[in-house]
Amino acid sequence: MTASPSPRHATPNKSQETGKPKLAFRPLPVPQVDVRGFWGDRAEAVATRTADILYDRCVAARMLEQIDPDRPSPGVVIPFHSPSPDEAASAGFTGSTVTTQMFWDSDLGKTIETAAYSLYRRKNPELEKKIDAVIDMYGRLQQEDGYLSSWYQRIQPGKRWTNLRDCHELYCAGHLIEGAVAYYQATGKRKLLDIMCRYADHIASVLGPEPGKKKGYCGHEEIELALVKLARVTGEQKYMELAKYFIDQRGQQPHYFDEEARARGADPKAYHFKTYEYSQSHIPVREQDKVVGHAVRAMYLYSGMADIATEYGDDTLRVALDRLWDDLTTKNLYITGGLGPSAHNEGFTSDYDLPNETAYAETCASVGLVFWASRMLGMGPNARYADMMERALYNGSISGLSLDGSLFFYENPLESRGKHNRWKWHRCPCCPPNIGRMVASIGSYFYSLADDALAVHLYGDSTARFDIAGTPVTLTQASRYPWDGAVEITVEPQAPVEFTLHLRVPAWSSKAKLDINGEAIDLAEVTSNGYAAIRRQWKKGDRVRLDLEMPIERLYANPEVRQDAGRVALSRGPLIYCVEATDNDSRLHRLTLPRTAGIEAHDEPDLLGGVVTLSATAQADAGDGWQDGLYRSEPPARVETRLTAVPYFAWDNREPGEMLVWLRDG
Amino acid sequence: MTASPSPRHATPNKSQETGKPKLAFRPLPVPQVDVRGFWGDRAEAVATRTADILYDRCVAARMLEQIDPDRPSPGVVIPFHSPSPDEAASAGFTGSTVTTQMFWDSDLGKTIETAAYSLYRRKNPELEKKIDAVIDMYGRLQQEDGYLSSWYQRIQPGKRWTNLRDCHELYCAGHLIEGAVAYYQATGKRKLLDIMCRYADHIASVLGPEPGKKKGYCGHEEIELALVKLARVTGEQKYMELAKYFIDQRGQQPHYFDEEARARGADPKAYHFKTYEYSQSHIPVREQDKVVGHAVRAMYLYSGMADIATEYGDDTLRVALDRLWDDLTTKNLYITGGLGPSAHNEGFTSDYDLPNETAYAETCASVGLVFWASRMLGMGPNARYADMMERALYNGSISGLSLDGSLFFYENPLESRGKHNRWKWHRCPCCPPNIGRMVASIGSYFYSLADDALAVHLYGDSTARFDIAGTPVTLTQASRYPWDGAVEITVEPQAPVEFTLHLRVPAWSSKAKLDINGEAIDLAEVTSNGYAAIRRQWKKGDRVRLDLEMPIERLYANPEVRQDAGRVALSRGPLIYCVEATDNDSRLHRLTLPRTAGIEAHDEPDLLGGVVTLSATAQADAGDGWQDGLYRSEPPARVETRLTAVPYFAWDNREPGEMLVWLRDG
Ligand SMILES: [Zn+2]
Ligand SMILES: [Zn+2]
Repeated sequence: MTASPSPRHATPNKSQETGKPKLAFRPLPVPQVDVRGFWGDRAEAVATRTADILYDRCVAARMLEQIDPDRPSPGVVIPFHSPSPDEAASAGFTGSTVTTQMFWDSDLGKTIETAAYSLYRRKNPELEKKIDAVIDMYGRLQQEDGYLSSWYQRIQPGKRWTNLRDCHELYCAGHLIEGAVAYYQATGKRKLLDIMCRYADHIASVLGPEPGKKKGYCGHEEIELALVKLARVTGEQKYMELAKYFIDQRGQQPHYFDEEARARGADPKAYHFKTYEYSQSHIPVREQDKVVGHAVRAMYLYSGMADIATEYGDDTLRVALDRLWDDLTTKNLYITGGLGPSAHNEGFTSDYDLPNETAYAETCASVGLVFWASRMLGMGPNARYADMMERALYNGSISGLSLDGSLFFYENPLESRGKHNRWKWHRCPCCPPNIGRMVASIGSYFYSLADDALAVHLYGDSTARFDIAGTPVTLTQASRYPWDGAVEITVEPQAPVEFTLHLRVPAWSSKAKLDINGEAIDLAEVTSNGYAAIRRQWKKGDRVRLDLEMPIERLYANPEVRQDAGRVALSRGPLIYCVEATDNDSRLHRLTLPRTAGIEAHDEPDLLGGVVTLSATAQADAGDGWQDGLYRSEPPARVETRLTAVPYFAWDNREPGEMLVWLRDG
Repeated sequence: MTASPSPRHATPNKSQETGKPKLAFRPLPVPQVDVRGFWGDRAEAVATRTADILYDRCVAARMLEQIDPDRPSPGVVIPFHSPSPDEAASAGFTGSTVTTQMFWDSDLGKTIETAAYSLYRRKNPELEKKIDAVIDMYGRLQQEDGYLSSWYQRIQPGKRWTNLRDCHELYCAGHLIEGAVAYYQATGKRKLLDIMCRYADHIASVLGPEPGKKKGYCGHEEIELALVKLARVTGEQKYMELAKYFIDQRGQQPHYFDEEARARGADPKAYHFKTYEYSQSHIPVREQDKVVGHAVRAMYLYSGMADIATEYGDDTLRVALDRLWDDLTTKNLYITGGLGPSAHNEGFTSDYDLPNETAYAETCASVGLVFWASRMLGMGPNARYADMMERALYNGSISGLSLDGSLFFYENPLESRGKHNRWKWHRCPCCPPNIGRMVASIGSYFYSLADDALAVHLYGDSTARFDIAGTPVTLTQASRYPWDGAVEITVEPQAPVEFTLHLRVPAWSSKAKLDINGEAIDLAEVTSNGYAAIRRQWKKGDRVRLDLEMPIERLYANPEVRQDAGRVALSRGPLIYCVEATDNDSRLHRLTLPRTAGIEAHDEPDLLGGVVTLSATAQADAGDGWQDGLYRSEPPARVETRLTAVPYFAWDNREPGEMLVWLRDG
């Protein structure tokens, strides 16, 4: 492998027009980071199992029949679901009827993306051949004018561009673009990239601010961030402009979704969620200050806004994003980094409403938070974003993938009676390829690079290669993170080179220590925004040792959160813990963790692929003396019991049973 | 008023055929008990407001248009709801599609019944005239052959007797029969009674064990207990036999609902609830040992079984009923006497599953429990049944009616965020007339009479008149119950007469005292099955004083109930308490009630129509220092606060706000 990024990964760092820095800190491209250890295991599972499984299950779901113009159309395989009883009354397809089959192109796009990132880790000629065949199908499917949608071409011809609100037309385009960019970068094959450029050109000819074009944008955001990627990889500013248009136009009056509904003869009010908050299009994005609506849509929108804020140096977007970040993280985020509590709208409800057992907390939403947070880091190292990115990564997102990479969660509740178990597939299979592509590209979340600085956001056994000030550098982390907070970083520039190394000091580690080549550094002096900044001339063999004390913590929720009142959660380092039935004798709701109980950490190399468990002497409500009834005036006796907790991400990888994050605090 | 029951209220006490005692203890007929005090207020609200409101809202719902053959049929006013998405696919009426409009006859039946009982309390010539007009409509509607169903005659002609499983055909007949019996008793007018006898005769000609008849029974039990009433008031054993047939046939194989579905060309499996447990027809009733399915159906079935057990001296039914009673009261009953936790099946789920905020606990289900319990008392005084009857009466049932008698609850949760508020009407208006008829007939639940004994089940200011051993007796209770446990009973026989007076000593009162004419009685010596039995020759002016100590109790749930773990409820006497936002400064989930806190009772004559409140010094989680986020390692500080609780039945009678029964136990 080459230490320097290939042209396929070139990220333009200066606007060709203004010379203004666009992206202060750029993520390292995926192939420039070799990940081992904790994330190495996860990425290995994706490369060896998930990537193939995603393809196979797309085939089994009959997706290829839909996209292949040489085969008969499968017709409607997944029934329409009409989102509200009112609408059920109106017969047929009214534009308010939706089927998840409309999103099949997006599932394939993410599957291609997962495969692409996985190819860096492990060659897989059979899978590559299959993906090439899928791309060939899309090539044959694409219309003369560039239009490409297996749903609208094969199932609902004649309806294209009539319902951007509900039907995910641009969303599908976005995911295919992301897949195309990743596949081009991984394989050098341009075919899908060229297809998607032609389609993006077609989209730009239909939608946009210019007179005569529709003033539309997608009900499900996604294409914005995808177009930014397309612009960066192709160097074509027109795609950036189109992305910016979608961001700018969103929520403007007259409202496009109203006009579009009227144009197809529908009542704009006959809409399931009765509010454009559902798709964050209720007001222009710069005026938004509450995270609302469908959680995945929100995360994708904010990610796109962050990209555009960075690309255009647009502080009006940054201000809005910081308000939204604050609203999410101080009022609407599970301790696991999960978000969007309600199944009803797959999204946000009201501040501090964070039910545990019924938490929707879709895997895709936490993945989306990782996307958003990593883009906020483009403005520079800031633990405000990186700490949350780490929390979502280690908890609410990877909980969505079984340890062996074969089974998935859609919802990620914080409490289960034992019936919430991983499934093989889902009729809305958005989550499996989303968690797949995130894990397969995890290396790019570890580091970001500026002209004369490298920021280390995540820790863990890994090797990064990058050029800085023209000098190739290899940086190696040796660490058992997240099981141990000791990180040894070796910097090996080809020649001595001056740059700033930014090292995140996570908020959970108040007693961190740092030394360079054995010399202690006063962290308080060098740390700002949660990152220690070390500027020096680095030379081969320089060793940085960061010791992050990794205390076991009891965490309490803001008293506004009714569901967590009187409860305590356990964490150690970046990991949130839970108790599972299989490790505990008592029914979990009977357990109380006394404030005084000592909690011990145990290395368990043979458990769940190797984890650190936590254990303590707890109290359990005893069942004796309840023969006669349900209620009595004598409180239940308490008996001592051993409580064992495992990392939340690893739950439901053994026999099914109860699970609980928020324990009763005693 | 006469002290002796009129012939209209005669309850046959010996089987005409066997001479065997049928009903050891018979409830006193409604007009023989004058109720004052607590229940007097409730009954007054029903007689002066609810009874008229029920009629008016039935009219507003267009029910009279459906039953009046002289008016055009209103057609389908309340849309069909197809119970499952699978079935939605199959077009039109398949027998699995249901509308609550099918039950309109039942709503009218219960409305007539409420009006009838209310007429004893308060003459209401206008309402009586309206009810007479409704009865006239039914008279004109009834077919030559006796058949009578406004739904099947006016909306779905030609479909009668094709779907007993779903369409409530016999259920409607049952409620009209109950209405007919009550109206005849209250007014002496036989018209509806005669109509319903003709209809019952028709039913007996269609359904029954004899060859050539359908082997059907109703999916929603109700007609069983109604036919028992009809048999008792008419003295016609054939109606008793038909009731017994419905009980005996239920759940037998081959399953009638399967056969019936096939007969109408439907798939017997295409049934919303996928299990006949929903209608307690999964196995024959004598084999049942778990309360399952739709809670109201279950209560009505068990009530009918208890009637038949008593009438036929059938111990096989009694054994089953005692198993079911045990299952309900030790595993599946809210502390309020509410039951059926799930909205999905309007019924039971699994043992100890008693969620508070989402509790369905339909008003009708608690009313049904009162019906069942009172019938179990037919076997003799037993606090096992009477204590639960009292709990359901004072808490989970009357919570369903606003203090002024004008607004209703369908669900009775034990926790609310402030959005669960009483409504004026419902498109399934089963609960309002059910709570109405129960309250209007409350006197008959106070006492039951045997050949030489009177049992006092409920306490409260009231006067009962009855004949015992041929002697008319007046028994007067003077008491502030349930606010005070002191009860003074004056017995005034026309001539000295020997009989046993059974006085319930509620389980919540462990320190009761009893004296007769000033002479103390050793309660332990005379009490069995929770009733003190005093046999003596009673003479005019005998005074019995029962002093029930009414402690404030902290109640704890069986540790199997996950939702109540670490929580405590408050009770005083028969009343369960709750906290409401309006009486408390802190958000309710922030409150903890320390184990050591003293709890005081306060008489509040001007609050909620006059109640006793409970108050204590509690702890509240403080909101300070949470500016920065949702989670922190420092537990929330606690501050002292005053906690005030009000009786659960009276909640949501003031400004809307949060409510909580199960407080955090500290
Ligand atoms: Zn998803
Ligand atoms: Zn009801």
